[in-house]
Amino acid sequence: MSSSWGERVKISIFGGSHTQAIGVNVDGLPAGEAIDEQAVLAQMARRAPGQDPTATTRKEADTPRVLCGLLEGVTTGAPLCAVIENTSQRSKDYENLRRLPRPGHADYTAYLRYQGHNDIRGGGHFSGRLTAPLVYAGAVCRQILERRGITVGSHVAAIAGEADTGFDPVNVSPELLGRLNQEYFPVIDPKAQEKMRAKIEEARMDCDSVGGIVECAVVGLPGGAGNPMFGGAENLFASILFGIPAVKGVDFGAGFAAACLRGSQNNDPFYYDESGNVKTRTNYAGGILGGITTGMPLIFQAAFKPTPSIAQEQDTINLPAQENGKLKVTGRHDPCIVPRAAPVVEAAACIAALELLAQSGLL
Amino acid sequence: MSSSWGERVKISIFGGSHTQAIGVNVDGLPAGEAIDEQAVLAQMARRAPGQDPTATTRKEADTPRVLCGLLEGVTTGAPLCAVIENTSQRSKDYENLRRLPRPGHADYTAYLRYQGHNDIRGGGHFSGRLTAPLVYAGAVCRQILERRGITVGSHVAAIAGEADTGFDPVNVSPELLGRLNQEYFPVIDPKAQEKMRAKIEEARMDCDSVGGIVECAVVGLPGGAGNPMFGGAENLFASILFGIPAVKGVDFGAGFAAACLRGSQNNDPFYYDESGNVKTRTNYAGGILGGITTGMPLIFQAAFKPTPSIAQEQDTINLPAQENGKLKVTGRHDPCIVPRAAPVVEAAACIAALELLAQSGLL
Amino acid sequence: MSSSWGERVKISIFGGSHTQAIGVNVDGLPAGEAIDEQAVLAQMARRAPGQDPTATTRKEADTPRVLCGLLEGVTTGAPLCAVIENTSQRSKDYENLRRLPRPGHADYTAYLRYQGHNDIRGGGHFSGRLTAPLVYAGAVCRQILERRGITVGSHVAAIAGEADTGFDPVNVSPELLGRLNQEYFPVIDPKAQEKMRAKIEEARMDCDSVGGIVECAVVGLPGGAGNPMFGGAENLFASILFGIPAVKGVDFGAGFAAACLRGSQNNDPFYYDESGNVKTRTNYAGGILGGITTGMPLIFQAAFKPTPSIAQEQDTINLPAQENGKLKVTGRHDPCIVPRAAPVVEAAACIAALELLAQSGLL
Amino acid sequence: MSSSWGERVKISIFGGSHTQAIGVNVDGLPAGEAIDEQAVLAQMARRAPGQDPTATTRKEADTPRVLCGLLEGVTTGAPLCAVIENTSQRSKDYENLRRLPRPGHADYTAYLRYQGHNDIRGGGHFSGRLTAPLVYAGAVCRQILERRGITVGSHVAAIAGEADTGFDPVNVSPELLGRLNQEYFPVIDPKAQEKMRAKIEEARMDCDSVGGIVECAVVGLPGGAGNPMFGGAENLFASILFGIPAVKGVDFGAGFAAACLRGSQNNDPFYYDESGNVKTRTNYAGGILGGITTGMPLIFQAAFKPTPSIAQEQDTINLPAQENGKLKVTGRHDPCIVPRAAPVVEAAACIAALELLAQSGLL
Repeated sequence: MSSSWGERVKISIFGGSHTQAIGVNVDGLPAGEAIDEQAVLAQMARRAPGQDPTATTRKEADTPRVLCGLLEGVTTGAPLCAVIENTSQRSKDYENLRRLPRPGHADYTAYLRYQGHNDIRGGGHFSGRLTAPLVYAGAVCRQILERRGITVGSHVAAIAGEADTGFDPVNVSPELLGRLNQEYFPVIDPKAQEKMRAKIEEARMDCDSVGGIVECAVVGLPGGAGNPMFGGAENLFASILFGIPAVKGVDFGAGFAAACLRGSQNNDPFYYDESGNVKTRTNYAGGILGGITTGMPLIFQAAFKPTPSIAQEQDTINLPAQENGKLKVTGRHDPCIVPRAAPVVEAAACIAALELLAQSGLL
Repeated sequence: MSSSWGERVKISIFGGSHTQAIGVNVDGLPAGEAIDEQAVLAQMARRAPGQDPTATTRKEADTPRVLCGLLEGVTTGAPLCAVIENTSQRSKDYENLRRLPRPGHADYTAYLRYQGHNDIRGGGHFSGRLTAPLVYAGAVCRQILERRGITVGSHVAAIAGEADTGFDPVNVSPELLGRLNQEYFPVIDPKAQEKMRAKIEEARMDCDSVGGIVECAVVGLPGGAGNPMFGGAENLFASILFGIPAVKGVDFGAGFAAACLRGSQNNDPFYYDESGNVKTRTNYAGGILGGITTGMPLIFQAAFKPTPSIAQEQDTINLPAQENGKLKVTGRHDPCIVPRAAPVVEAAACIAALELLAQSGLL
Repeated sequence: MSSSWGERVKISIFGGSHTQAIGVNVDGLPAGEAIDEQAVLAQMARRAPGQDPTATTRKEADTPRVLCGLLEGVTTGAPLCAVIENTSQRSKDYENLRRLPRPGHADYTAYLRYQGHNDIRGGGHFSGRLTAPLVYAGAVCRQILERRGITVGSHVAAIAGEADTGFDPVNVSPELLGRLNQEYFPVIDPKAQEKMRAKIEEARMDCDSVGGIVECAVVGLPGGAGNPMFGGAENLFASILFGIPAVKGVDFGAGFAAACLRGSQNNDPFYYDESGNVKTRTNYAGGILGGITTGMPLIFQAAFKPTPSIAQEQDTINLPAQENGKLKVTGRHDPCIVPRAAPVVEAAACIAALELLAQSGLL
Repeated sequence: MSSSWGERVKISIFGGSHTQAIGVNVDGLPAGEAIDEQAVLAQMARRAPGQDPTATTRKEADTPRVLCGLLEGVTTGAPLCAVIENTSQRSKDYENLRRLPRPGHADYTAYLRYQGHNDIRGGGHFSGRLTAPLVYAGAVCRQILERRGITVGSHVAAIAGEADTGFDPVNVSPELLGRLNQEYFPVIDPKAQEKMRAKIEEARMDCDSVGGIVECAVVGLPGGAGNPMFGGAENLFASILFGIPAVKGVDFGAGFAAACLRGSQNNDPFYYDESGNVKTRTNYAGGILGGITTGMPLIFQAAFKPTPSIAQEQDTINLPAQENGKLKVTGRHDPCIVPRAAPVVEAAACIAALELLAQSGLL
């Protein structure tokens, strides 16, 4: 398989960077949900390239055409399929990639996997462009979640070592998330953004690229969603998050940092708040214990490697010649995809959260 | 669902800490594979408690009884089910946990998920004891992999901040893995182990616990295994690894560290080695590009939170009284589960690697 | 895969005719359901051999041991695993089957599928004995359904051409089903049973066997359960029913007979009954339209081929000699399995109905 | 879920009778397979309405647009998505169906399932029109099968009780299938077609409709494909066949007729043919034993109910008024869909056969 995910809310993503169109089919959405098209487009605009000096100058109209699944803007319960035409394609930019696979890219592994029949143009089905339909599907799921009091937002937690202030894990407000999830380059502390931009600009000047981390929160999830072992919330979120190109790590709550903590620090004490709701005083668990939600904010991080497409000359192999070679990647590429990745991470989180609720009979 | 995983090699784990027995059913193993029982037991012994001062003193015989699936020690192709009797149970140790859920444990979330009907004794189905059948299944898969030239091993990369030397990612030898995957407390640098043991002992004296990191490598995997997007090798490995209790983070190759690198560092240059095989000069990718294996060592890390069961008094809620309360966990608990987790991580990696090959038509 | 089924209520069946034990793991049962062990055993007794002249004389104690998943007789929500020891095994009866595969059996196809490594003894994993754990799982699901007002029962609709009276499809009473689902050889018209028994006895005297049809009804299902296309109720029921050995056909409502009807006959007119409930005046649809339940009785038939194990000498191949050969099957075999199949069909229907409700958010 | 099927070759069908477009995404096709577009269109033409007096006069261009997955006519291994625009829509024909659900249709059950939000126009996602993308996907799979020596064909075995000659089950020639799978109204005996046409015409004159049976064969499948129990070939084929609207029964080989046979008749004796291949002298098993292929022709039947849309006035309910009512269905409808269903059955068989091979590691 390549691009299908989910049991109750199934998404199937199709297309490649330079195919006629790309799109997504979403099967299993609840019926009767009004979908605000403008709000969907706003999410897609956050991911779209060409709008900021940190990103590629390639422009995409990226207006999805809904083929089915909505009737007068309301979900019918039947599969919802949305298609985005590919219009801005410079196929010739990629002609030499079949010979000289790009380091850090899937060119070589796709060649192995598909015996050379894969569509190499623009990375084909492995292109970051495939995150556009993912954002579409996530934006639809987001509206269904919001109707149930669940908000999803993220910020760029770090780029090239420059860190933003983190979420206060016990007190992530829907208002903060509501601000972040409308921004192109969401950060909690504006000063952090400046430093990050400087790092990106530095990399661009060096014909290089930088990686970073997106931290994402889901607030309003009921406790009791999820399952033990392999059916846990962490497994579910990780299984979609690693589908975002360039994600190389995922952790929840304190995550990797928990490896340095003691139990007395990392254990989150339960208490009844003034309204009689069960809460935890800290939230090192990131809202998940034993794979099941506690009702506290579900918080996770996704680590992005630096964009592999850089303009520097790189060593690689020459496949037809079966000898070592040199490659200089041309074309338009982001020196840092992390800001544009934030809405993609949120989209994946929205889809995962909806699936989690559906699996747990809580939708 | 709770405890089923896999499409081609399906495992179903059952049982709880204090049920009559626990076990695993493995459906989809290739037929005709001789399984060396002693090698399986050796893996189970690495996970078994009671053998080292860092671990709980609870003793388990943990001898699995194979109900079916082997004929004269050879897989028949039909489901292989192995059962381990539960004999050493002190159920009274856990009587107060239904009232006072342990911070950092699944007691409270399981209460929500199962409306209080869950088996609280020893953590029930959420117990770390459920990793015994996982190790069983992994040990079977390991032998099938080894017959195909694939070796899996791991080491304790860190405990409470004390780090072992990491794998050389381009040069992980099967011999090193073969040594590590027989040890109880596997480390590459023996001096690191001493420091780790000191940290564990310190925590024990403080009635506390510590977390850590396991780094695992799979060598010998062919290139071209895996799929784009959600069907990638990372997604597959993460979806089983997060099923190990206490895992809160997973990353591949440079992982979270890649977020601080530049593309020119993180891109692994391809080259033909003297035998004409395609390799990469570095391996920041951890052997996976675009979800598909490169043929270089597949390397990942799993972060473990500190054991939540500590002997210190902790704040929690009193569920029947609906008021805040205090809990002192008694019973036998590990101050650090990380050394015992190494064979569990390897087991999960073995199962995931076999599934990956099966899905890719490479088995 | 071989023996796993279901998405929300997953069953995994393991074991073979002559392995140490057989059993079933059920993952995804709702928590808090009291399970009456005697009622479970009553269902298993209906399937057990050795109790009637129409069946094999092989005796099985068939008392399942519940390893986990029940706490004081109530489901915990964790996987429920039940194991049945194999005690009455005459392995030598089957020694020549590896050489001379039985016509109509899976001996030859299993040999191909598992390259000769399959367990041939008693048919191995293909044995009808594997329906014992299926009946166990079904009996558990049945009690959960009954608590929700849903009753499942069946009758032997035909054996060797001798037909029982069929269900009145618009008026299947839970009382009738409640009688049938306790009987060993359930029929609506007792006179039909006599004729069927005569046919079976005739076949036995001829060292031959006969097939038949089981008709099953599920009453009390809410309308609106199911999905269009591949997620339909028919697809779901068929996908488990064809897992019962010897089933070669499944149809719903008028089924194959509908192929001879006109639309004006086969269309079931809707009406409001005196209580304001929507019903249909006829029920040629068998309670399913467009894959979704109407709320009328769900009725289907399963066709069983005659038992392939017959005492007559038969032509077959000699695999090691690679030449044609002759086989005389010895051992104890049923001249007709259809009466014993009725509880198996009901069990499959119970599991499918529970899965259908779970998938539809109606559990 | 509604419209996703398959594990290794996953199809997702989307759209409704009157949505902007319908289509199918196929994920998991092998790479490097040349797809002849004309051959695909020829299959779609067999299903298309408006070409024969037995069918509806609605015309559809039904030219699929391939959005992705093919590069210069060859599969890339990435998802293949094809879209068919909906152009000939008379939405007003269906306006009263939301009030007055058609007997025998999914109007009422979809209303329950989707709380009235379903798209009622033309049956929405439940429309027979959704079989167009199924035929598309099947036609692609068919070419991949044919390249491996596997041929699929079917004939109209019966309409309204008028039967065609059946396949000779041990001797179904690829040539016969190759003729049948190009015809609009495929029959083995041309005289049977005349009688069937007469029955259809009779029904049309009576403003009524008739049902029928399609018999389908797959020849060239290797032996050893499939699995025991729920993973059997029968389960797999049935699970997709019941997704074709109006299918109410499926059987394999002798199927329901086997219920009247004796074991000595129904058992297919194995023998070595002159080339040393294992065959069976008869083929009552329909090429499947224990869920696994024997290598003999795989033969099955699918029973179709009569088209529910008839022009006669019918009793139904008036949902908004909550009282009984009368309905006269207008619009264009087939008096018999069985001839047009033959290519749909073949398409499903092609998809199932490819999935079966992929699951069995035989692709």
